Amino acid sequence: MAEINRLLAANEGYAAARANVADPRPSQHLAIVTCMDARIDVFAVLGLHLGEAHVIRNAGGRVTDDVLRSLALSSQVLGVHTVVVMQHTKCGLAGVTDAELRRLTGADLGFFPIDDHTAALEEDIEILTTRPYLEPLRVVAGMVYDVESGELDHVVRWRRPD
Amino acid sequence: MAEINRLLAANEGYAAARANVADPRPSQHLAIVTCMDARIDVFAVLGLHLGEAHVIRNAGGRVTDDVLRSLALSSQVLGVHTVVVMQHTKCGLAGVTDAELRRLTGADLGFFPIDDHTAALEEDIEILTTRPYLEPLRVVAGMVYDVESGELDHVVRWRRPD
Repeated sequence: MAEINRLLAANEGYAAARANVADPRPSQHLAIVTCMDARIDVFAVLGLHLGEAHVIRNAGGRVTDDVLRSLALSSQVLGVHTVVVMQHTKCGLAGVTDAELRRLTGADLGFFPIDDHTAALEEDIEILTTRPYLEPLRVVAGMVYDVESGELDHVVRWRRPD
Repeated sequence: MAEINRLLAANEGYAAARANVADPRPSQHLAIVTCMDARIDVFAVLGLHLGEAHVIRNAGGRVTDDVLRSLALSSQVLGVHTVVVMQHTKCGLAGVTDAELRRLTGADLGFFPIDDHTAALEEDIEILTTRPYLEPLRVVAGMVYDVESGELDHVVRWRRPD
């Protein structure tokens, strides 16, 4: 009956999540920051259910001022203490420059391009772990999702010292 | 056999989406801007498949500078011509002020609170429809998702004049 038990166990998580809609606080105390890329189903990639995590997405999954605004609310008001920054392979922001993106879009903006995933994740984690108003965060991880294989790689972990 | 045909038709969409992972351009030429709220499964709410839409999320689902940066890439580089801004009921940004959010978070930031959903959607659609670098956008809609009933309401539509 292991196959059936697996289904029943999965349903327990799903039902608990469905019952959670009155509570705006993510039940896993978790926020995911990732790219807007159409090939990422965040819940499916990370086995998340409704109600479990804040999901913040922008071009590249970079830690911008708008992400900091969102995480200030997540961590100070809504009980989030774990953040995962998930970049991905084949990202349109990887291997290009700001100047190229300005030319392509005609928009005079800073685009947060990614030269190297590990360096970009370390830079973003540095920002998340040094802002005073994000002090409730205990654990931050960075990873790269492979949009072709579905696998996660390049995992960087940080835990706030006790 | 209608029940079976429904399953087979759904699978066609799913299989087409799975086959689409090599292409970074959203196959529905669509971007969704919505809130990070843990109770929103964007794919489920809007019947979307992998590969069909960019998904941009932040606190409130507001059109911030970071959303404009993302949509510049979506529309100028990746073929997006339709944007849906989806706010939701029971949002933590609704019915509060910037001053209250600054006090709650200890962060001296602008939080884009929502006094009235229709007014906030109209304001955000005004921004999206007047930026020169978002000129490829043809259709923009604003709506409010009810996190309790699962229904969409307050639909505002805009189409670029020919």
